Amino acid sequence: MNTGIPLKITETVLRDGHQSLAATRMRTSDMLPVLEQLDEIGYFSIEAWGGATFDSCLRFLNEDPWERLRTIKKYLKKTPIQMLLRGQNVLGYNHYADDVVSEFVKRAVDNGVGVIRIFDALNDVRNLEASMRAAKESGAHVQGAFVYTISPYHNNDSFLKVAKDLVSLGSDSICIKDMAGLLAPYKAYELVKTLKAEINIPIHLHTHYTSGMASMTYLKAVEAGVDIIDTALSPFAMASSQPATEAMIAALEGTERDSGLSKEKLFPIADHFRTIKKQLTETFNLNTNIEIDTKVLSFQIPGGMLSNLLNQMKEQGMADKFPDLIEEMPKVRAELGYPPLVTPTSQIVGSMSAFNVMLGRYKVVPREIKDLARGKYGRTPAPIDPEFLKTLIGDDEIITHRPADDIKPQMPALRQELAEKGYPNASTEDVLSYAVFPEVALKFFESNR
Amino acid sequence: MNTGIPLKITETVLRDGHQSLAATRMRTSDMLPVLEQLDEIGYFSIEAWGGATFDSCLRFLNEDPWERLRTIKKYLKKTPIQMLLRGQNVLGYNHYADDVVSEFVKRAVDNGVGVIRIFDALNDVRNLEASMRAAKESGAHVQGAFVYTISPYHNNDSFLKVAKDLVSLGSDSICIKDMAGLLAPYKAYELVKTLKAEINIPIHLHTHYTSGMASMTYLKAVEAGVDIIDTALSPFAMASSQPATEAMIAALEGTERDSGLSKEKLFPIADHFRTIKKQLTETFNLNTNIEIDTKVLSFQIPGGMLSNLLNQMKEQGMADKFPDLIEEMPKVRAELGYPPLVTPTSQIVGSMSAFNVMLGRYKVVPREIKDLARGKYGRTPAPIDPEFLKTLIGDDEIITHRPADDIKPQMPALRQELAEKGYPNASTEDVLSYAVFPEVALKFFESNR
Ligand SMILES: [Co+2]
Ligand SMILES: [Co+2]
Repeated sequence: MNTGIPLKITETVLRDGHQSLAATRMRTSDMLPVLEQLDEIGYFSIEAWGGATFDSCLRFLNEDPWERLRTIKKYLKKTPIQMLLRGQNVLGYNHYADDVVSEFVKRAVDNGVGVIRIFDALNDVRNLEASMRAAKESGAHVQGAFVYTISPYHNNDSFLKVAKDLVSLGSDSICIKDMAGLLAPYKAYELVKTLKAEINIPIHLHTHYTSGMASMTYLKAVEAGVDIIDTALSPFAMASSQPATEAMIAALEGTERDSGLSKEKLFPIADHFRTIKKQLTETFNLNTNIEIDTKVLSFQIPGGMLSNLLNQMKEQGMADKFPDLIEEMPKVRAELGYPPLVTPTSQIVGSMSAFNVMLGRYKVVPREIKDLARGKYGRTPAPIDPEFLKTLIGDDEIITHRPADDIKPQMPALRQELAEKGYPNASTEDVLSYAVFPEVALKFFESNR
Repeated sequence: MNTGIPLKITETVLRDGHQSLAATRMRTSDMLPVLEQLDEIGYFSIEAWGGATFDSCLRFLNEDPWERLRTIKKYLKKTPIQMLLRGQNVLGYNHYADDVVSEFVKRAVDNGVGVIRIFDALNDVRNLEASMRAAKESGAHVQGAFVYTISPYHNNDSFLKVAKDLVSLGSDSICIKDMAGLLAPYKAYELVKTLKAEINIPIHLHTHYTSGMASMTYLKAVEAGVDIIDTALSPFAMASSQPATEAMIAALEGTERDSGLSKEKLFPIADHFRTIKKQLTETFNLNTNIEIDTKVLSFQIPGGMLSNLLNQMKEQGMADKFPDLIEEMPKVRAELGYPPLVTPTSQIVGSMSAFNVMLGRYKVVPREIKDLARGKYGRTPAPIDPEFLKTLIGDDEIITHRPADDIKPQMPALRQELAEKGYPNASTEDVLSYAVFPEVALKFFESNR
């Protein structure tokens, strides 16, 4: 407790909470009845857009994500709306041209986003440049995020270096993004201390309860002086989501870092979301029985993925080789330069390891592995051994420049395509929806435009 | 982290874990396959008996609880079996004669219990005397426990006083029993510091995740030097149970209080219990969707009970008086001398408050309230105003002595009764089963003796 400054809180119930526990199925109409109450709580921000919500709106809910944003903005008059952006990937898993990235960010801010958290799965800050620049120009609060992971190449100093790069790019705050719930409490303490010692803008911590440690991690981060944490109202908290907002408020009441927020004001809002969760579970036949997964701490791979791999090996009559797979995964990750194991890299490393065990090492190399190795997604955290790289990619081009430099502007062609498909007067927002999720967007337009 | 001593852990999956999350329905056969593995972990103890398991064995599972104990003991060769005992209430909610209490404890130890945690719902240590004496004589590790609660009459000094009384009665260790999950992290830190400063035997902390704070509470207690914590393997952890064993081990790895236990060794055992939980849920049609309940932090009454009370008031067409009820409850609790709100006192205070709001204050006074007020369960934490007491109990006797002093020996009569019912050669264990759950035990005997 070395600062006397109240802890700030970002509420995630409208984005990561239901993305983690209800397959991103919360509808705008589920949010409306309590938006004004949420606006009165005094949150630093309310995360309500980006991540998987954009895709889910179009694909499953027959909602225009841009319309959702504008609607939420109407009710959240005081509290900034926060969104999550995958840097050059915008909201998908491929790199887009700078003009798409830039336009997307500007439209997001114009339609109501106040805080943009931007990250890259490899922590290659070049993949954040275009989006951060656009966000700055739009006047949003720009939060540069780095992904937390564990490897011999990741430590407090390496994270500090990335954080400083993010400051140089104009971050208004820095986010430690621990999407896998790997950050242990005392490691969080040291990391936050390291960052706070050298960085003058606020530090924001995002973690998941996946491994069961999240609230402890927040507590030690708060003691180390972290400025903001992400929490979700209790019905959409814990398990694979964030710690509960009410519990974190209560734990710090009366301490130096008391958030000053009223948990009592949250009770009726939480009651609302408890009902919503029940409804979503029934309507969309969701699995509500999500448990913590402590194996992630040993393997960095979610337990669910491990069972899937085991099943695949069983089908091949090779279940006895599963222990080899467990040993193979960290080797493969090391050889590929220690990418953080998040979607989609965890799947990529997992299947590569399974192939290696079943067919012989690197006898079959999927396209994604080659692209990752040759720098198509950006720089891997550790360099890849040149000779190993050669055996992996053969004569494929090695990319050392910013990957998006290879991508020509896409907006004019996208507009053209949409015109040809019958939407000559598509709004820029619709063009952007089409840019990131073409098929899904077209299907949405068919019944809504 | 002011001690360099490894944290010790008590595993609760075989008792409180399934009592909290699976209606105490785990069967002995569900435990057997992993008992030997559990014995190898290095736990301080494994809680596996007492609490609601005794009743559940006889009532729902057609199992002899004594037989379960002997079976478990066969496999747990190194790790002490721990049980939970409600002092003079043994395993029920009424006081028994000293001879029943004493015999029950002795038989429990003889059949395999190594550590006995003994508590009284009012923290009246006179209700622990008989059981603690018997436990000492039997050679068990005797853990005197006090119930944590929040009131103007409960503070670190009052808890220290109870703890010292428990030491005088021969405790080998002291347990802070936070059954409602009310103990906040920094309060736990101060409480443990207070106890550790003046008490030389180990301090054991038991809490529940009910309010979402439990793992944070453990973390701060560990920093304050707590010796032992209660955790449950992840499938039976969190929500209304304890923090996950694997997560607590992981959180402390590499710190001064590293438990030294291997979470990797726990993964296959947890996998087993994940399957068991699924089976129990299906077989007994259990509600698996147990969430944390943050309202308990404001009202000390579980949210589920609040909804029940609200429904009762709705049925009476008095739902509009629910806010009055919320204000009435702390008043009633204060007037009754601030009993800790645990089963059954929470229900007693809840219904008294509902009566007060609906019918006028203390117009109708249930028997349980009169008994509580006149000292039939023991001394209330705060004295009750004599004039108020008079209006409440009229000319009923006030009990200031140890309540069990009024109860004559019961064992001979119980034996006699059983003989008359057709069991003249009943074992002492069977007599004790009959003593605490007469109808249920008789029904069990019918089909098993
Ligand atoms: Co997240
Ligand atoms: Co308990």
